[in-house]
Amino acid sequence: MEQEFESRLLENAVNEFASLPGIGRKTALRLVLHMLKRPVGEVNNFAEALTRLRSEIGYCHECHNISEREVCPICGNPLRDHSTVMVVENVKDVMIVERTGRYHGVYHVLGGLISPMDGIGPADLEIESLVGRVAGGEVHEVILALSATMEGDTTSFYVYRKLAPMRDVAITVLARGVSVGSGLEYTDDLTLSRSIDGRTPFENSLSK
Amino acid sequence: MEQEFESRLLENAVNEFASLPGIGRKTALRLVLHMLKRPVGEVNNFAEALTRLRSEIGYCHECHNISEREVCPICGNPLRDHSTVMVVENVKDVMIVERTGRYHGVYHVLGGLISPMDGIGPADLEIESLVGRVAGGEVHEVILALSATMEGDTTSFYVYRKLAPMRDVAITVLARGVSVGSGLEYTDDLTLSRSIDGRTPFENSLSK
Repeated sequence: MEQEFESRLLENAVNEFASLPGIGRKTALRLVLHMLKRPVGEVNNFAEALTRLRSEIGYCHECHNISEREVCPICGNPLRDHSTVMVVENVKDVMIVERTGRYHGVYHVLGGLISPMDGIGPADLEIESLVGRVAGGEVHEVILALSATMEGDTTSFYVYRKLAPMRDVAITVLARGVSVGSGLEYTDDLTLSRSIDGRTPFENSLSK
Repeated sequence: MEQEFESRLLENAVNEFASLPGIGRKTALRLVLHMLKRPVGEVNNFAEALTRLRSEIGYCHECHNISEREVCPICGNPLRDHSTVMVVENVKDVMIVERTGRYHGVYHVLGGLISPMDGIGPADLEIESLVGRVAGGEVHEVILALSATMEGDTTSFYVYRKLAPMRDVAITVLARGVSVGSGLEYTDDLTLSRSIDGRTPFENSLSK
């Protein structure tokens, strides 16, 4: 690439910021000029936070969530229900579910979804390790909590076919339906159809 | 601030990204998760680019443009016209004017504009050093190239009053007018009024 700025140091910093997703060269330059105005200590702290993040955070050997230790605090918590495993696409999904405070089982992070268009096959994801966990015999329910997209559905179906032959494992999916607090007029047709197919006894719908 | 993430390392990195202008916590988390997926070497290069940027880039003692040495390559270039000084708001403006390839004088970077609303007064800007440069006697023209905003106009007027009593210095401003390639219907009324007031002999408008 041709050098855009007189200063090689400026050029490098702009290139680094522009390598981040969703940040173009104009924004990168703005961020770099902002950095130049901040005290040296603050910029050094920023840099140190990045190096420590990458070098000290790893992945949990059990569930593949990010973790500072071999086993993450969720898998290492004896109060969580280790017989229920929720399968999610990525680390962010774990955070989102944890924020509800409603789930007390453990997770399995696939690290993506099957997507032939993007060259991502089952072998690129943590599917074999999930099969291994379930084969261990301690897991009684696997909840497939993947996106309601073509890739999510494909991946759910693939995982389902791998796990279905195993004994004593219930495989469930998150309910699809009308959002809480939302009316029918704001619900798209497909979601509405699915919520009709998946209708539940009224007494189950009462808040517990 | 309350800790949002289980991992202190993740929390720190998200806080650092979220401290950048225009980046909220959701985007910061996205960038941090992206960083976690990149090779260790790349993340270390990013961090190093930041620390070197901040510790090795300083400001030119002459014009206050960013520079890796005491005097920037523009001020240090004997082929540039040191008798003409263009006064700009910030470092980015220097880059923008340099890109046109049309200006061969030197610059003076004020580092901002007078803005009582933001608590920025003349003493916060490099105005005294400009007066000192001009008092040296080598400068024959000062071009005020500040934004056509209230703050820009206020600052231009302040600088003008400081420099006007000096002998043998022409003080000029950039022409305001209809954009090249643009029609009257796309020009706002104020700009159009200014371009009428500032009309020039037709022969001057022919490309040189």
